[in-house]
Amino acid sequence: MELPKYKIALIVGVGEGLSASLARLFAREGIKVALAARKIEKLGALCTETGARAFACNATEAEEVERLFGMVEREIGTPDLVVYNASGRARGAFTDLVPAEVASAIAVSAFGGFLVAQQAATRMLPNRHGAILFTGASASVKGYPQSAPFAMGKFALRGLAQSMARELSPQGIHVAHFVIDGGIRSAARAEPADRPDSMLDPDAIALSYWNVLQQPRSAWTWEVELRPWVERF
Amino acid sequence: MELPKYKIALIVGVGEGLSASLARLFAREGIKVALAARKIEKLGALCTETGARAFACNATEAEEVERLFGMVEREIGTPDLVVYNASGRARGAFTDLVPAEVASAIAVSAFGGFLVAQQAATRMLPNRHGAILFTGASASVKGYPQSAPFAMGKFALRGLAQSMARELSPQGIHVAHFVIDGGIRSAARAEPADRPDSMLDPDAIALSYWNVLQQPRSAWTWEVELRPWVERF
Amino acid sequence: MELPKYKIALIVGVGEGLSASLARLFAREGIKVALAARKIEKLGALCTETGARAFACNATEAEEVERLFGMVEREIGTPDLVVYNASGRARGAFTDLVPAEVASAIAVSAFGGFLVAQQAATRMLPNRHGAILFTGASASVKGYPQSAPFAMGKFALRGLAQSMARELSPQGIHVAHFVIDGGIRSAARAEPADRPDSMLDPDAIALSYWNVLQQPRSAWTWEVELRPWVERF
Amino acid sequence: MELPKYKIALIVGVGEGLSASLARLFAREGIKVALAARKIEKLGALCTETGARAFACNATEAEEVERLFGMVEREIGTPDLVVYNASGRARGAFTDLVPAEVASAIAVSAFGGFLVAQQAATRMLPNRHGAILFTGASASVKGYPQSAPFAMGKFALRGLAQSMARELSPQGIHVAHFVIDGGIRSAARAEPADRPDSMLDPDAIALSYWNVLQQPRSAWTWEVELRPWVERF
Repeated sequence: MELPKYKIALIVGVGEGLSASLARLFAREGIKVALAARKIEKLGALCTETGARAFACNATEAEEVERLFGMVEREIGTPDLVVYNASGRARGAFTDLVPAEVASAIAVSAFGGFLVAQQAATRMLPNRHGAILFTGASASVKGYPQSAPFAMGKFALRGLAQSMARELSPQGIHVAHFVIDGGIRSAARAEPADRPDSMLDPDAIALSYWNVLQQPRSAWTWEVELRPWVERF
Repeated sequence: MELPKYKIALIVGVGEGLSASLARLFAREGIKVALAARKIEKLGALCTETGARAFACNATEAEEVERLFGMVEREIGTPDLVVYNASGRARGAFTDLVPAEVASAIAVSAFGGFLVAQQAATRMLPNRHGAILFTGASASVKGYPQSAPFAMGKFALRGLAQSMARELSPQGIHVAHFVIDGGIRSAARAEPADRPDSMLDPDAIALSYWNVLQQPRSAWTWEVELRPWVERF
Repeated sequence: MELPKYKIALIVGVGEGLSASLARLFAREGIKVALAARKIEKLGALCTETGARAFACNATEAEEVERLFGMVEREIGTPDLVVYNASGRARGAFTDLVPAEVASAIAVSAFGGFLVAQQAATRMLPNRHGAILFTGASASVKGYPQSAPFAMGKFALRGLAQSMARELSPQGIHVAHFVIDGGIRSAARAEPADRPDSMLDPDAIALSYWNVLQQPRSAWTWEVELRPWVERF
Repeated sequence: MELPKYKIALIVGVGEGLSASLARLFAREGIKVALAARKIEKLGALCTETGARAFACNATEAEEVERLFGMVEREIGTPDLVVYNASGRARGAFTDLVPAEVASAIAVSAFGGFLVAQQAATRMLPNRHGAILFTGASASVKGYPQSAPFAMGKFALRGLAQSMARELSPQGIHVAHFVIDGGIRSAARAEPADRPDSMLDPDAIALSYWNVLQQPRSAWTWEVELRPWVERF
């Protein structure tokens, strides 16, 4: 039983805890890491810690995404492991939503995912090797009230991932979608002291991403739901 | 047991058989009908037959959709029954898809649905009465290979419909989403003679829309799947 | 567009409001009705009102179910419309459940459904005509805590219905499963006065069953979810 | 981030490749293993290889299951990791199915799972520690034609697992259900030479079971789908 091996990772949508946890885990496993975010000023410490390189990119613009992949290729190498973490949301009563903000939320959550995935797949298919991972949310499978734009973007991203899994898996690309069903703990957002592990530890999430990446191709998962032990669902 | 009553319908995305069948059925039931489409040149006969009025509108533009509702209100009245039928698609190998066409497919299938639904809900909520129906496809619940853009748009539309159903149903607005799982027969696309009823009759689909509209509010459906008796699923 | 016609109905699992509503609706539509229940003492008034005949039957026993169909055939005719409404449940902390009660709950909710459906299908298939309807619950699609036996039985019944729909629809038998997601109002269980229509009116449910029965075969539904407008889901 | 630790495993329904792969993996990880099957004559080699003990048990009989747990406790210790792998099926045209065989299929696939899980949970809850894993199939989420009994049993098992996950996870018991969507390769059933890895390697499945067992409780999965890279779904 041979386990897959990845050499160069690109994580798009960095800033929160999950991307940092992924960067650290990948680096520990000997994978070179590229980080992409709209603003990269705050990524200095993470780059120092993990040896990663940071690239500024608006993932909703086709040209910028193409340029991003070009830069990563030249400066690090062709990524065989790509994670799309960016998401956009607009909350409020349905009739109060601002159309431009709704369009933007869909673009960041879903269309950017398409652009990044297409650049990734184009580079992976000739080698019949690679993995493309998408980060979803509770809203990927359940449309909550007062939150239509987030549901639209996350449902769309899931449709993208499922279509890609059906098309690209038989060509050797492992496509997987993660439904993060609960709050992710962070420095800014601690969990209640009396409810231990009631929020997702980003390192624990990263571990599940890694486990999916380690699956031999005879038994691949295309979707994983993760939630804290005490989360209602 | 009181059945709901609707007076003025607006159908967006007219052209194929389903919208025409809906227009005829609504007209037969005494409902005034407005039709909206990007191009309305071909709607003359249907208007004559049903007494409907046709309005040109690009449903992916917020201003046009707002203007559409203004015109319908002035010329016919405030719609209490709105159907969104438009959809866009781009097919082909994932790496061959053209980003601008993908963006357009998502805009037509999903963002236009949001714009229309928001204008509709704004007018319905003060009366705590109205219905908003969305037309989905097999791709609403299953992402097929070679068809990521259609899956993205239709998944997003379903997320919109589900979020709206949770938010607006308790305010008296019946929101429903129809998964049309099979080909719709039409003049241009007849079914095989040796496989009777292997394609959906648009009049049969319209009947199911009507039945959902007739549901008393104590037993509402938010989603209906329809497929021919011989369709594999 | 031809609508299906049914002549003889058998409703299994009578007692609560839904079966009575169905019996009344079918009778109004000119359909002869047979009722089956474990105990039929209380069905006298309903029989008088609808002209139905009542038959005692334990639906979890193969021989009794076979005998039931024989009696209905002789006394009324061969049913071309069969509804399975019986269900069993056992509630409580998982570790407190009594195995014999769990087995019984599964037998009543699911195995009885199989027995009834098989007798029905055997009689319908030669005519390539008939409908078999199953009544599910929230627990058909969501396993709630403290309620494993009900989930087991209702999930199993849904699996039965879905398998039958795939196998028998192309042979002309309309198989449908209804997810009743909410409480059904009854004489014994009234809804709160300040929350009108917050419980399902059994007549409203029956109407949806009827609408599914009226679907032309080019556009059949195999599953319908019904819930009150204010129900959370 | 603390990873869970398990000491004593009980695998019920041994015979095919998956249970053997699990036994080997658990043994390698230092876990003591008990095996239970209706017939244990063929388990000698596996016991020798892994140091496991084999116990004869008909998992559909409450008394036998209770006795099984008693024996395992006395001879090895109280299991904190239990896997239910048994399943029963009856195939054929719906009207040809034999009721007694249908009942048996449901009992083996689902009721036995309940009996084993209840004995397991009773022993795990006082320690607020343990894991209960269920092996499902494609039929757990899709009812195929000509296969209603397998769908009934596997749907029911999934309902059990989901209800248990909601009830027991907040009490510290990790409940997970695996949808094995494809054929498992074995000595008796090799895969086509020209389609490498088109059947699931039981060692690869076992690895995914292990990865779920290693999840920290802040990010648990309750369900995993596994399929070969080339499997259609």
